[in-house]
Amino acid sequence: MADQTTDGFYTNLSCGALGIRPGFEAAVDLAIEFGFGAVEPDVGYLTSQSAEQVEALRSRLAEHGVKWGNAGLPVDLNADAATFASQLAALNDHAARLASYGIDRVGTWIRPMSNSLTYRRNFRRHAERIALVDEILAGAGVRFGLEYVGPKSFWSTELYPFVHTLAEARELIDAVGSPNVGLILDTFHWYTSGESAADIAELSAEEVVAVDLNDAPTGLERDQQQDGQRMLPGATGVIDVAGFVGALRKIGYVGPVKVEPFNAELRAMDPRDAVAKTAESLNAVL
Amino acid sequence: MADQTTDGFYTNLSCGALGIRPGFEAAVDLAIEFGFGAVEPDVGYLTSQSAEQVEALRSRLAEHGVKWGNAGLPVDLNADAATFASQLAALNDHAARLASYGIDRVGTWIRPMSNSLTYRRNFRRHAERIALVDEILAGAGVRFGLEYVGPKSFWSTELYPFVHTLAEARELIDAVGSPNVGLILDTFHWYTSGESAADIAELSAEEVVAVDLNDAPTGLERDQQQDGQRMLPGATGVIDVAGFVGALRKIGYVGPVKVEPFNAELRAMDPRDAVAKTAESLNAVL
Amino acid sequence: MADQTTDGFYTNLSCGALGIRPGFEAAVDLAIEFGFGAVEPDVGYLTSQSAEQVEALRSRLAEHGVKWGNAGLPVDLNADAATFASQLAALNDHAARLASYGIDRVGTWIRPMSNSLTYRRNFRRHAERIALVDEILAGAGVRFGLEYVGPKSFWSTELYPFVHTLAEARELIDAVGSPNVGLILDTFHWYTSGESAADIAELSAEEVVAVDLNDAPTGLERDQQQDGQRMLPGATGVIDVAGFVGALRKIGYVGPVKVEPFNAELRAMDPRDAVAKTAESLNAVL
Amino acid sequence: MADQTTDGFYTNLSCGALGIRPGFEAAVDLAIEFGFGAVEPDVGYLTSQSAEQVEALRSRLAEHGVKWGNAGLPVDLNADAATFASQLAALNDHAARLASYGIDRVGTWIRPMSNSLTYRRNFRRHAERIALVDEILAGAGVRFGLEYVGPKSFWSTELYPFVHTLAEARELIDAVGSPNVGLILDTFHWYTSGESAADIAELSAEEVVAVDLNDAPTGLERDQQQDGQRMLPGATGVIDVAGFVGALRKIGYVGPVKVEPFNAELRAMDPRDAVAKTAESLNAVL
Repeated sequence: MADQTTDGFYTNLSCGALGIRPGFEAAVDLAIEFGFGAVEPDVGYLTSQSAEQVEALRSRLAEHGVKWGNAGLPVDLNADAATFASQLAALNDHAARLASYGIDRVGTWIRPMSNSLTYRRNFRRHAERIALVDEILAGAGVRFGLEYVGPKSFWSTELYPFVHTLAEARELIDAVGSPNVGLILDTFHWYTSGESAADIAELSAEEVVAVDLNDAPTGLERDQQQDGQRMLPGATGVIDVAGFVGALRKIGYVGPVKVEPFNAELRAMDPRDAVAKTAESLNAVL
Repeated sequence: MADQTTDGFYTNLSCGALGIRPGFEAAVDLAIEFGFGAVEPDVGYLTSQSAEQVEALRSRLAEHGVKWGNAGLPVDLNADAATFASQLAALNDHAARLASYGIDRVGTWIRPMSNSLTYRRNFRRHAERIALVDEILAGAGVRFGLEYVGPKSFWSTELYPFVHTLAEARELIDAVGSPNVGLILDTFHWYTSGESAADIAELSAEEVVAVDLNDAPTGLERDQQQDGQRMLPGATGVIDVAGFVGALRKIGYVGPVKVEPFNAELRAMDPRDAVAKTAESLNAVL
Repeated sequence: MADQTTDGFYTNLSCGALGIRPGFEAAVDLAIEFGFGAVEPDVGYLTSQSAEQVEALRSRLAEHGVKWGNAGLPVDLNADAATFASQLAALNDHAARLASYGIDRVGTWIRPMSNSLTYRRNFRRHAERIALVDEILAGAGVRFGLEYVGPKSFWSTELYPFVHTLAEARELIDAVGSPNVGLILDTFHWYTSGESAADIAELSAEEVVAVDLNDAPTGLERDQQQDGQRMLPGATGVIDVAGFVGALRKIGYVGPVKVEPFNAELRAMDPRDAVAKTAESLNAVL
Repeated sequence: MADQTTDGFYTNLSCGALGIRPGFEAAVDLAIEFGFGAVEPDVGYLTSQSAEQVEALRSRLAEHGVKWGNAGLPVDLNADAATFASQLAALNDHAARLASYGIDRVGTWIRPMSNSLTYRRNFRRHAERIALVDEILAGAGVRFGLEYVGPKSFWSTELYPFVHTLAEARELIDAVGSPNVGLILDTFHWYTSGESAADIAELSAEEVVAVDLNDAPTGLERDQQQDGQRMLPGATGVIDVAGFVGALRKIGYVGPVKVEPFNAELRAMDPRDAVAKTAESLNAVL
């Protein structure tokens, strides 16, 4: 694994992203065993534990140099108004809990199309809903990351395509106007949107909240790639993961790095084997 | 009073707008006594009554041909995110209550400046917050009216002036994109923004949710007029209330019409006298 | 042909849209022979004629009740800045010429995608470039129509899809903010964007500057239809041309109606036969 | 004068900004005599000279280490469409001339209000007109600077205030989306808009194209300051010129710095005395 003192990346074990369900306690054990730098928090699990139990867990993680990866956002940016209102109203307490656990990054993805909202109407919706969520997260000291989703096989399926490129995601973040909001970058979306290492090199480190590394299957045109069918980084070489990582390193990114292969083979494996293979693939590309 | 069968206006008694506090039951009596077509609902009072009491009140109003005027919005569009979230989360039940009482119009005003949000950032904030409020109100069958505020002595007091004209209010409503959202027009803002009867005549009746009629004091330039110092309609002739009413009649506006003079003399009067004088002034201009 | 005194439509012969090239003088003869209500002007031809010749032509058209159809716009909205500047600088004289000939409508189409401009950047570009063109056309008394282009097989071919629906085209026209700008409606785009007669019925007559009627080939899904492969209106019944025409009639549209089938069979015909068949197809659906 | 090897500022003599008219040749002599780092180019004068004469002048300037200051833009961003079109069409050749003379910066100011265009309509107009101008300037290798104008006594004089702060100017530049467009900063606007050294320190050096240093008269509230009545930098201490300069130095600004005092006393002086006093004031604050 790359030297964390020089590059600031920390590998993040997300069993959910691997499609395996060992349970959170086992996930922590696996993260420690395989030398991950972080583990994705299970906030529901943490909430069910006593303060002492959480403290004990955090001490154990600290002992092994394991940080928290980024957590998910319990607010649906595309929900109807009443649902959004109640989820947003609940976020204040949730954000305080995250802060009390030491979880400092939350993320969600931007749905890249709509059948009912034009691009501009959807942009205004997202800008202000993100601003509302962000104000609450920022107040608790939690950064908010947004992931754009690149495959054309996804964004072209409804009447109004929406944000699906780095340039658009940055426009959206600019419109929010908060330095607490940043990007979640995923090589798969970066590849499917036709972006380059130079596009990453233009970012400042502070703009990046979390990173996903994936490869793509061979035998498909870029525009035919499917969001739900990916490979572990380095598996095929279709995506220039090394170029992407190099650009991130150059700008000085500090934060979690995980894989999210949505891969049937991996899902079918024994959890321990899947995690071992994941660690190996991350170590190879970092 | 103008013939309600021909023009669809109904005079609306709002004791709050007159600065008098007779209590809601007395307000209802005064509305009936002085032949108002509507009375501003006191939703807190209604909520405190039993279903039977509300029914009895509504029957009495119906007997005298008195409708509900527009109610206020219990959501602050400029609040911090946590406050906005909790107010919005409470709106669902509130809107259902309004609908159960037969109240069909809710309104609020647009703060015409900000010291922290640029025009464009504030516009996006308002567009989506209004859309969230509107989705809930529309779901309950309640129309949502927005009042722009015209005096330069108000909008020029902070770093970033915001929506303060009819043209801008229509842009904002267009951006929301819901036919349930409309305008609350006030002669005082129409005058201070330099608008004309022709500007009103361009509207469709469906764009107008509620109307306020006021005059302005003499001896002040238009740009020196103060939002909190107005006169009863027709009092001075500074504002062409007849031209405004004529244009509204021409487009076929159907809805409540009230005065909101923010006037010290009226506030100092006995409530019954203030209401009598208000009825007289409305009758004279309609 | 439908009674022009009742519905205000006038059939417009555009040889260019049929893919035939009889020459403008022959086109005028064919328009008269087959009872068209209008003929597409050839501005280059008119410019090459003396004032007396143009007058004679206009007199002959007037005798037969033939108006001018809509002309094209000699400005490329997507051109580089220097090209756009020189085309725009030349538009003043061109618009004066159009006005002197009695040509009162000009139109162009909106390219529904870009590989370099995000939706919002492209929207701002179009809004202001259209406003510049419109100010010059409006000053000469010439209306400016914009046609949105609906096929997904077209708008999904570049990284940033752009305006390709009626709702978006109206947003763009609203952003321009000039009543002189309106829509060019084409059944083919209306069909491929999944719109309905109700969407047309919501428009005001003044919003529509010109109309194209076409049908679509059978055997293709809506999203597979190709912009360059269409049929004469009524040919297949894939598109509900009658519903579209009925909605236009209901709102009181007054203006030119042409076909634009981009059809190989028609292109291969003798011009006179192609025009005869076109007249027949228009008569059948109007 | 501050050491140019360490801070990259070069003092720029603009006789126009001083309100004196010694003629361009005399201005060059004065710039050399008083040790300015740059002189504002008179493009009309340069165009009237032969290539040899221009070369000779440039050699003389180079000998004395005098660069070109920023030139003005011969395009009115607020002109009617036909005027804008013809000015834009002429810009291509003008930009090529600038490039051939070695002039690398052009600037204009943003009119901070309108009586006819709402903020959003004006923003779209400016964004695209600036983009058109910029594309031509960038093609010739000339940077394009925009100056926001801060006094409330100016922006509040029409119905629709427009861009008048650093935050808004950056939004406008972001909307243009070209790294060739940047800011012209003026302490007078920075002061009247209530901005701080911290706001300058957030900029990158590349965002700043040119700089003006001025002070403000005593005895006026910030909101009463008039755009046309300023003082030489350091004259009164009303504006914290040192704080502003320090922040610019910190971010590493490289470019011209001039004064623009619009000051009657200076205008009344002998040109040589006015230039001497200007040099002295700049030397004192840099």
